[in-house]
Amino acid sequence: MYSFRNDYSEGAHPQVLQALTDTNAVQTVGYGMDPYCQAAADTIRRLCAAPDADVHFLVGGTQVNLVTIDAFLQSYEAVIAAQTGHVSTHETGAIEATGHKVCTVESPDGKLTPALVESVLAQHNGTEHMVLPRLVYISDTTEIGTIYTKAELTALRRCCDVHGLVLYLDGARLGSALTAPGNDLTLPDLAALTDAFTIGGTKNGALFGEALVLTRPLPHYRWHMKQRGAVLAKGRLLGIQFQALLEDGLYFDLARHANQLALRLRDGIAALGYPFPVDSPSNQQFPVLPNAAVQKLQELGYEFEIDHVVDADHTCIRLVTSWATPESAMESFLRDLATC
Amino acid sequence: MYSFRNDYSEGAHPQVLQALTDTNAVQTVGYGMDPYCQAAADTIRRLCAAPDADVHFLVGGTQVNLVTIDAFLQSYEAVIAAQTGHVSTHETGAIEATGHKVCTVESPDGKLTPALVESVLAQHNGTEHMVLPRLVYISDTTEIGTIYTKAELTALRRCCDVHGLVLYLDGARLGSALTAPGNDLTLPDLAALTDAFTIGGTKNGALFGEALVLTRPLPHYRWHMKQRGAVLAKGRLLGIQFQALLEDGLYFDLARHANQLALRLRDGIAALGYPFPVDSPSNQQFPVLPNAAVQKLQELGYEFEIDHVVDADHTCIRLVTSWATPESAMESFLRDLATC
Amino acid sequence: MYSFRNDYSEGAHPQVLQALTDTNAVQTVGYGMDPYCQAAADTIRRLCAAPDADVHFLVGGTQVNLVTIDAFLQSYEAVIAAQTGHVSTHETGAIEATGHKVCTVESPDGKLTPALVESVLAQHNGTEHMVLPRLVYISDTTEIGTIYTKAELTALRRCCDVHGLVLYLDGARLGSALTAPGNDLTLPDLAALTDAFTIGGTKNGALFGEALVLTRPLPHYRWHMKQRGAVLAKGRLLGIQFQALLEDGLYFDLARHANQLALRLRDGIAALGYPFPVDSPSNQQFPVLPNAAVQKLQELGYEFEIDHVVDADHTCIRLVTSWATPESAMESFLRDLATC
Amino acid sequence: MYSFRNDYSEGAHPQVLQALTDTNAVQTVGYGMDPYCQAAADTIRRLCAAPDADVHFLVGGTQVNLVTIDAFLQSYEAVIAAQTGHVSTHETGAIEATGHKVCTVESPDGKLTPALVESVLAQHNGTEHMVLPRLVYISDTTEIGTIYTKAELTALRRCCDVHGLVLYLDGARLGSALTAPGNDLTLPDLAALTDAFTIGGTKNGALFGEALVLTRPLPHYRWHMKQRGAVLAKGRLLGIQFQALLEDGLYFDLARHANQLALRLRDGIAALGYPFPVDSPSNQQFPVLPNAAVQKLQELGYEFEIDHVVDADHTCIRLVTSWATPESAMESFLRDLATC
Repeated sequence: MYSFRNDYSEGAHPQVLQALTDTNAVQTVGYGMDPYCQAAADTIRRLCAAPDADVHFLVGGTQVNLVTIDAFLQSYEAVIAAQTGHVSTHETGAIEATGHKVCTVESPDGKLTPALVESVLAQHNGTEHMVLPRLVYISDTTEIGTIYTKAELTALRRCCDVHGLVLYLDGARLGSALTAPGNDLTLPDLAALTDAFTIGGTKNGALFGEALVLTRPLPHYRWHMKQRGAVLAKGRLLGIQFQALLEDGLYFDLARHANQLALRLRDGIAALGYPFPVDSPSNQQFPVLPNAAVQKLQELGYEFEIDHVVDADHTCIRLVTSWATPESAMESFLRDLATC
Repeated sequence: MYSFRNDYSEGAHPQVLQALTDTNAVQTVGYGMDPYCQAAADTIRRLCAAPDADVHFLVGGTQVNLVTIDAFLQSYEAVIAAQTGHVSTHETGAIEATGHKVCTVESPDGKLTPALVESVLAQHNGTEHMVLPRLVYISDTTEIGTIYTKAELTALRRCCDVHGLVLYLDGARLGSALTAPGNDLTLPDLAALTDAFTIGGTKNGALFGEALVLTRPLPHYRWHMKQRGAVLAKGRLLGIQFQALLEDGLYFDLARHANQLALRLRDGIAALGYPFPVDSPSNQQFPVLPNAAVQKLQELGYEFEIDHVVDADHTCIRLVTSWATPESAMESFLRDLATC
Repeated sequence: MYSFRNDYSEGAHPQVLQALTDTNAVQTVGYGMDPYCQAAADTIRRLCAAPDADVHFLVGGTQVNLVTIDAFLQSYEAVIAAQTGHVSTHETGAIEATGHKVCTVESPDGKLTPALVESVLAQHNGTEHMVLPRLVYISDTTEIGTIYTKAELTALRRCCDVHGLVLYLDGARLGSALTAPGNDLTLPDLAALTDAFTIGGTKNGALFGEALVLTRPLPHYRWHMKQRGAVLAKGRLLGIQFQALLEDGLYFDLARHANQLALRLRDGIAALGYPFPVDSPSNQQFPVLPNAAVQKLQELGYEFEIDHVVDADHTCIRLVTSWATPESAMESFLRDLATC
Repeated sequence: MYSFRNDYSEGAHPQVLQALTDTNAVQTVGYGMDPYCQAAADTIRRLCAAPDADVHFLVGGTQVNLVTIDAFLQSYEAVIAAQTGHVSTHETGAIEATGHKVCTVESPDGKLTPALVESVLAQHNGTEHMVLPRLVYISDTTEIGTIYTKAELTALRRCCDVHGLVLYLDGARLGSALTAPGNDLTLPDLAALTDAFTIGGTKNGALFGEALVLTRPLPHYRWHMKQRGAVLAKGRLLGIQFQALLEDGLYFDLARHANQLALRLRDGIAALGYPFPVDSPSNQQFPVLPNAAVQKLQELGYEFEIDHVVDADHTCIRLVTSWATPESAMESFLRDLATC
């Protein structure tokens, strides 16, 4: 019937597709050196109030993570990440494949704090017998839907300054984060507080694409991209899409829509008495349902990921909404769950 | 006025774009596990008469080269390539970045022969003090526009069998090769004679995409892809495009168009008395022009790559046609060149 | 006065040095293809009752770990290790530098069990989005001095068989393990139960050297060695030393000496009322001492590593004995500690 | 009878072995942080007139090459080397295994010149589509026995300065180079003209060991060493040996001996009418002999490497002398060759 499996189950938002269609016949140079990418980069610099930021466009999230993290690090330097961090779990060792250790730490809510970062540092003695943790990887929203506040990100920035660390924020779901209730971060805040962050397109209305905003210079970044197969021949496709998403605020409208439906799902499910182990204000929700209800919903045609088995009778599932989720899908899900 | 810079200056062929538009709202699973990719893979297996081939879809050429070559090789094994091979020159050391040496050999026409392959083998003593050359990288069309005949490819296959080598063909411009005058190779031939080859979409009408046909199994290929950031979240985009290109022969129609315009360019330039160091039957042409003509053409708004400096007064340029090149552009170029 | 810092504070046992002196003028071929290495490999095969085992000699522990683990693994495959495992902590990300993730798990005693191994496997979903854990890394003695029993190693072997895992045992301190009270493992057991294990020379009387015993074939292992700079030009030095250590049991005599002194240290310290968080039967002991005692001992000239801070007033130190530790050093340490 | 196969067929020079024996029982800290390494590093800084140079000791040549070259380079940067360079041929792709391309160029005498370096640079367009050649690898003596003059090395230095390149000199046979007839280079010259160079011990009287002299700082070099398994636990063994070799000039005495015997071999063979394709003033000689003579010499028990097949009747062999080669071996070889 309907898939809540993820936020990349469809193609692109119609306006994005229209922009690709409108520009289809125009000739440009390749590899992202075209005017569309230039314009989109300018838009991003303007929105971030970061006129000197370097902006690059890559195709996917694992790709931008592995290229950027490797570009920031010397070979003996390592990443600090939450155990749940995408780079720690669902990237098939992509960071390690570029030679770097990912040092993980348990986090109750998927977020890192100065204390957690320092607990990792404390396990390293600063000698040549151990890696040097050097880059802090965080995601906003996190992999379990939580978001950072400005105070939290500011504290991490200070921690990174004290310890000489690079702060990298994976914004695969940044739209959802910045439009979630409780969020007080802005793009200029992100540019000011991180060394690099991404603005995710794939999960918020683009066919594909992650924009990387570098406020700490990485002069040969394009060499790193090319060496990893991360330079798109028709790079303009990325610029066109990001310009369509960002120039008039469509990006945030889409994310707001996804969040609203997710929160209505959350509230409806909670009203039926089902618990949520994590309090997520964003477009991923993780309710715990009886196995019978899970099975019934699947039989009715709903698709979603199983997050984890809770006990013999209960399962935590993941429901993801997107710019494309119709209100009716959310409502019918709640109606059907009420009958389980 | 017009860019002959490359064959990826525009977006996609309208039919390809239409296919993306038509399917845009459909929900599918991610990562290329969707029905569109399945259908496109089936189409490719059918066209290749290779029912057991494994087919994967990747975004770009450097990407598919680095993932596949690394997947075929043990760490101490190396690639044999022509000095002009794309992996030797224009991929920023992407193969070496996965740990493998590329052993190059001079080739007069950009093609490898059994003799050239064996000359590389002869430089290696088979002991642990040297790499073991193990994979032969060829491209069709080559980087300088030449093509392989069936006899040549069959000879390479035999050579690879004798020496236990993997034969990998980079088909970034395979459409142009298979529709070029003098070509006698078919997709079934390629499936029968190589261990793996690609069918390039980027340079022949797709927004992006390379289809990889594996006739020698690589069971965990998707792990290699993911580790290198080469799994597209909305993988369906690749399946949809290749199905649009291949199911009714559009792919070859587009390539034929590009070749025809290239050959008319070639003939027209030759008729003006300008030489071509390489005899290319495909969509890349490399005429040698007086510097004054080159400059005049540039001033008129024509764009093209400078291939190399020939002497103080002459330059070899590269002209590339594509599915999108209008007849008028070719004609006006010839007209303007005649006045130089 | 005396250093209990580690078991590689001196040169070689005199008999080992004598063997090097005796053979010094003999000419042999290089790279470990000489008769001394052949003889030492034969001795090891005999002692292991493993006539078909492949034996290689490398210079150091991190070196043999990184070469061997990488040789066993495909690029998307990962290591399972205890949090305290040497490859997890004190090798500067050497395994990750070859491209492989090390998946760690907390272990109370530094040892892995089938349950711990399976807890790591359970965190991986078997899809291409995650690494495939494939090699179990254990050490005997462990990094905190504990040893495996035959029952424990047999259980791990079964676990590895069930899950298709490679079992690799780091024997940097294998002499100490095999001669410790409570040990019931033998070299033939190790050859039968692991896929590969090392016999450490560096920490038990050699100038340097680790012998690798491969019972699961790795046909091109010497290529892996050479590519990592791990083939010693005068490889004979390794064969000569291992033959001197192993042909008449010197290796085990030396380890027994180290253990005896360590256990007398342990018993003497315990008799003074100081606790040991880990119960080690081998040549590394980890007592918790008051800070004042630690400082006094240091002022008296004793050297040792600080393992960790226990609380504001107590520190856990590491005392290591070796083949070279004189009884008098152990006795004077106990005498001096008694006065602290 | 006698092996001219290489210069590492025996153990160590007796004075070196004696130094190891004399210090055998002394306790020191590990990993090269001991007083012997400190003293040897001071000796080297003094001999090089380079008081600020950083000196490290590694076990082997491939090892020091791979660690150092990788430490100097960003991932997209490449090496320039002669086709005959050790890193290009006989290190099993060790440099590529750290991710870097080695760009080779044909050289008639195994040496690089500014013109050859610039010919490699000219093949690279400076864009992100190609690697950036960044480190010039040379060896002295070269792999075919030739040596650099001060004028040649000075010219290379200037070339490197102009193009922003790192100049690295592999001195595996540096003793032979610096004592060869025609040499006008000194250790202070090498320190002044290169960014890094090695002083080879393995091939000139040590059991093993290469000293690395860094005049361009690489602050975290020891992390690179450890990550590649290149930190010797009993690092003192390296310091003791280099101190024994260098403090009183033994190193150069040994090399002078090797050269003298090699040149007498050369002159004797030439007097018999056999040609030498390369004019080598050092301890490697490459005469071309009739196959019958080669076979006869082998039957008489002489060992040597076959360098290459010249024609159906002639073979170029490699004869290597060392500190250990007795005059009698050289004389009997000439006598026996005269009878062939």
